[in-house]
Amino acid sequence: MPSSPFEVGEATAAAALAAPVLRRSAAADRARWLAAVADALDAAASELLPLAEAETHLDAARLAGELARTTRQLRFFGEVIRDGGYLEAAVDHARPDAAPPTPDLRRMLVPIGPVAVFSASNFPFAFSVAGGDTASALAAGSPVVVKGHSAHARLSQRTAELVHDALAAAGAPAGTFGHVTGREAGVALVTDRHIAAVGFTGSLAGGRALFDLAVGRPDPIPFYGELGSVNPVVITAEALRTRGEGLAAGLAGSFQLGAGQYCTKPGIVFVPRGGGFAERVARHLASASATLLSETITTGFRDGLDTLVSLPGMAVHGTPEREGIRPLVLATRIEHVLENPSAHLVECFGPVTVVVEYTSPDEVLAAIRAIGGSLTATLHGAPGEDLATIADELSMIAGRVLFDGWPTGVAVGWAQQHGGPWPSSTAPHTSVGASAIRRFLRPVAWQSAPDELLPPELREDNPLGIPRRVDGTLVLAAREGGA
Amino acid sequence: MPSSPFEVGEATAAAALAAPVLRRSAAADRARWLAAVADALDAAASELLPLAEAETHLDAARLAGELARTTRQLRFFGEVIRDGGYLEAAVDHARPDAAPPTPDLRRMLVPIGPVAVFSASNFPFAFSVAGGDTASALAAGSPVVVKGHSAHARLSQRTAELVHDALAAAGAPAGTFGHVTGREAGVALVTDRHIAAVGFTGSLAGGRALFDLAVGRPDPIPFYGELGSVNPVVITAEALRTRGEGLAAGLAGSFQLGAGQYCTKPGIVFVPRGGGFAERVARHLASASATLLSETITTGFRDGLDTLVSLPGMAVHGTPEREGIRPLVLATRIEHVLENPSAHLVECFGPVTVVVEYTSPDEVLAAIRAIGGSLTATLHGAPGEDLATIADELSMIAGRVLFDGWPTGVAVGWAQQHGGPWPSSTAPHTSVGASAIRRFLRPVAWQSAPDELLPPELREDNPLGIPRRVDGTLVLAAREGGA
Repeated sequence: MPSSPFEVGEATAAAALAAPVLRRSAAADRARWLAAVADALDAAASELLPLAEAETHLDAARLAGELARTTRQLRFFGEVIRDGGYLEAAVDHARPDAAPPTPDLRRMLVPIGPVAVFSASNFPFAFSVAGGDTASALAAGSPVVVKGHSAHARLSQRTAELVHDALAAAGAPAGTFGHVTGREAGVALVTDRHIAAVGFTGSLAGGRALFDLAVGRPDPIPFYGELGSVNPVVITAEALRTRGEGLAAGLAGSFQLGAGQYCTKPGIVFVPRGGGFAERVARHLASASATLLSETITTGFRDGLDTLVSLPGMAVHGTPEREGIRPLVLATRIEHVLENPSAHLVECFGPVTVVVEYTSPDEVLAAIRAIGGSLTATLHGAPGEDLATIADELSMIAGRVLFDGWPTGVAVGWAQQHGGPWPSSTAPHTSVGASAIRRFLRPVAWQSAPDELLPPELREDNPLGIPRRVDGTLVLAAREGGA
Repeated sequence: MPSSPFEVGEATAAAALAAPVLRRSAAADRARWLAAVADALDAAASELLPLAEAETHLDAARLAGELARTTRQLRFFGEVIRDGGYLEAAVDHARPDAAPPTPDLRRMLVPIGPVAVFSASNFPFAFSVAGGDTASALAAGSPVVVKGHSAHARLSQRTAELVHDALAAAGAPAGTFGHVTGREAGVALVTDRHIAAVGFTGSLAGGRALFDLAVGRPDPIPFYGELGSVNPVVITAEALRTRGEGLAAGLAGSFQLGAGQYCTKPGIVFVPRGGGFAERVARHLASASATLLSETITTGFRDGLDTLVSLPGMAVHGTPEREGIRPLVLATRIEHVLENPSAHLVECFGPVTVVVEYTSPDEVLAAIRAIGGSLTATLHGAPGEDLATIADELSMIAGRVLFDGWPTGVAVGWAQQHGGPWPSSTAPHTSVGASAIRRFLRPVAWQSAPDELLPPELREDNPLGIPRRVDGTLVLAAREGGA
């Protein structure tokens, strides 16, 4: 049942009351809370996984992997905040003899305040109630109010209960975590005066509408959205010649994963003409029909497919179904893409990919430039080829550039980047990996503060032993302590 | 003469052509370019300072100091990029034995692309053509197109010529720097398809209008605006008792600096009732009338003053002038502020400050909570007082919290923060200090990239010796090299 405006207001008011408590909490305590949530979800796997399978139609193995990833992610952010480097702590000691003299200045990041998190339809664990946005916001010390996704409402509700109870049992303040449901609740969250930032994963249309609300407030707030992406792949002549069969199988596996419902799905693949690549990919098409995550996604997929199939010169490999959803490979020539790029570069969320045959690498460069921002861009080349130009071009349009791999896996780690230029993201940040925490922090400097009024992380003796930049020099804790 | 749409288009197209060249440039080269600009401006001081004095009516000593600060700032950003820590470089080596296996991932920040910079009226050097936004954007490797301010048009033009020529002589690519003028040119810049981010310092109204344009684009771009701020000051009973005279003189000096035209001007000052503090401050009022920066600012100041003076219970110390602008101290009781906070908390840009008398510290906390975001917040206390609560409260509403000082000085350094919650800023970033560079960068990760296709900063042997986070551990260059 959708949350009422009163319930939304209750959740954000509770979050606002929790915010100053969280703000003063120790990183070690927040790491403990995150671990408690992870433990609770792991312990409830046998309850959560069947719920997820029933609601999403995603397969059991994939869901079990996703849940494991989600709890690893919660623990990982505990590691990130224990390290302390994420605070970007800097200490400039006073220089009374400088011209002009400069005061003692100490800067670090502090929690931004209550965060609204929008669950994604396609990752019921990793990008939902207890997913990356929630984990990174709680790690930052910002309370979270999640708007659950209607495509897995019961799972959301049950996950929210587990998260709430685990946090309470671990000693987190009331209001640290809230959960609301319904489209109106989402709108109310983004425009709620207590909400200081938004994390969103979803469609371009839905994300843009909420982004417009967030930046249109009397007091605009940051909106961190991961939206649509076509995730181009470029295969060189030499790569096709030497390992065409493996590439066909690899692409088939990647674009059909989760019935094609990955924001990193390879949606457009540039291959040299004449290798029969589309046909080879089509040999790996799953024969069973799939059920997509929701009616909306099913309709959107059918509409997108109709548009793509009707484009001049577009060939279809595989058997479209009237009732179910069957994976398909589309194929066209690059001239058609260059004549009308925008029509070819629409994200079609489901099990389809478009193979584009080219004759010269210059055509590929031109097509890549016509593609807007993308979460990922992939290059399959071969040793000895000159790949510098195309690799550079791909890094201009994407947040992650892959070599000899497939974009659908997104490891949670320190060096991950999930977010690229518009329309793939609304802000130059990542929603996966250690740096995701930066979205839910804001900088504060203390000038000439008595040591006892500083946050521990900025006190002269660095009691928590975090890395800091001291008078312009980056100092690891052990060194700063005199080791 | 205002730039034509054609001229704006020429400047942004040139910037777009320069962008890939800048993107591949070495930090050492960009540091050299910045130093060349600094040298050129220093060498032209005897030409620039009289121009600035004539156009802004700011005094010669202040302007000479500001120019020196501006050229130091340019050189400082050279230091920031030579260090390399600003890239947030991270290397996660592949872990083929992990479950699931993870690939080699390497992440760093890259230039965001051409940046539009809006000059401020009140700092004709430090926040204008060659100011902090320009310095940090060029340091990042992002080309800049500056919109000069009409309040110092000739100085802008001449500075732009010097910057352009110095960059060209130092070997920077054509299009690295452009300069346009006129209100329409500003609007055209923010909506130009080549522009990837905006840096702005100015009024709330002007900033909000441009912010709305930037986020309303078909492809929204980040808008980094420093807007208005009232910069509250809290003086405790003990501070007033032990050093009231010094505080009165200090406040008088700070709010009259540059005829009160600082975005960090202390605009509202909470003092214990009964000390006659406003009268004591008024004894330090300058007797000469001032000329403000522009007609717009003069009108805005008069209007704001009229509003404040007409508030119930507002006393005026000093002699208002019909023709010129004379510094004034206003005084009221905190009950009036608590009854109608928004009316009292409007930024009044010019030489006026509002002294608010309180009887209990709880009233001050309530008033502070009613103040929106501010660039700075200042606390004058005394040893032995319990200041933790008020200090914490101030850090919630401001970007910089000062103790026993005045906010009008903003040192350029590693730990500086100039930017606070809305309406003082549009984004959780700083426009002064080392971190200002983050605004003009975006993250990219390379997955399983051959070493030769990586940017030098991410290659396995770390040839530039920058700090990096390697497999989760922050490593200083010397250590990573095996020292």
